[in-house]
Amino acid sequence: MGIEIERKFLVVGEAWKQGLTPERLSQGYLNRDKQRTVRVRLAGGAAWLTIKGESRGATRAEFEYPIPVEDAEQLLALCDGPRVEKYRWRVPHGGLVWEVDEFLGDNAGLVVAEVELAAEDQAFDMPSWAGEDVTADPRYFNSSLASRPFKDW
Amino acid sequence: MGIEIERKFLVVGEAWKQGLTPERLSQGYLNRDKQRTVRVRLAGGAAWLTIKGESRGATRAEFEYPIPVEDAEQLLALCDGPRVEKYRWRVPHGGLVWEVDEFLGDNAGLVVAEVELAAEDQAFDMPSWAGEDVTADPRYFNSSLASRPFKDW
Repeated sequence: MGIEIERKFLVVGEAWKQGLTPERLSQGYLNRDKQRTVRVRLAGGAAWLTIKGESRGATRAEFEYPIPVEDAEQLLALCDGPRVEKYRWRVPHGGLVWEVDEFLGDNAGLVVAEVELAAEDQAFDMPSWAGEDVTADPRYFNSSLASRPFKDW
Repeated sequence: MGIEIERKFLVVGEAWKQGLTPERLSQGYLNRDKQRTVRVRLAGGAAWLTIKGESRGATRAEFEYPIPVEDAEQLLALCDGPRVEKYRWRVPHGGLVWEVDEFLGDNAGLVVAEVELAAEDQAFDMPSWAGEDVTADPRYFNSSLASRPFKDW
């Protein structure tokens, strides 16, 4: 198991994109219950099954297992609700790599940046393009975006 | 992925136990929805994560991945509802190996035999100790036994 400690922010502008190439991610949920999300993710010819426990602050339990891509395609068909599709940009800033997700489809227009930390109180440098802190807002959980996409907010 | 084709029967008497030793299984569900069950199973020092699709007749999709035992212990704590505990007996009969599950705890008193087939119409020899066919009865799904155990029937 791992512990995931992650802060999440809205993103301002597009300057952070410069010189970077994103990866396309496609994911669905075998369970969207926030106490035990079960995610199937396809990305760049690889696939994972990921289970996360409930968040306490910025922290939650995370278990991740690689699975065959062929299985992932079929598991996505078993998922509850539509897939979440996005481009993921890895943006180096202040010694950390921020993951900026630019959502597609029913979530188009939403851009969110996440930074993974080693401890809840770890200091980090905020990029100029990071806006409102939405770590604790359940609307921004990817598992929520599958059932209640950005276009319906 | 695999396709699981399985018939399930109630069990009569205890004669089938003779000379056999069971394995203890402990399992819980990260999702009990019959369209996409996600099961965590601990058995004999090994553990698996298993996803099954909805049954059509005796057939359903099945995806199974080995996981570390340490992860399984923690995933069981994330599960929805109590664990299902049982002894599993492997009983050879007519060229096939039947799995006889003797449930414990809140499901004590329930004994069910399953036989896995290569095709829905595969002929097989019924053991004398196999009773009523309960393949299609959702009460006997292990995922149901977690939420509505045998003692409450």
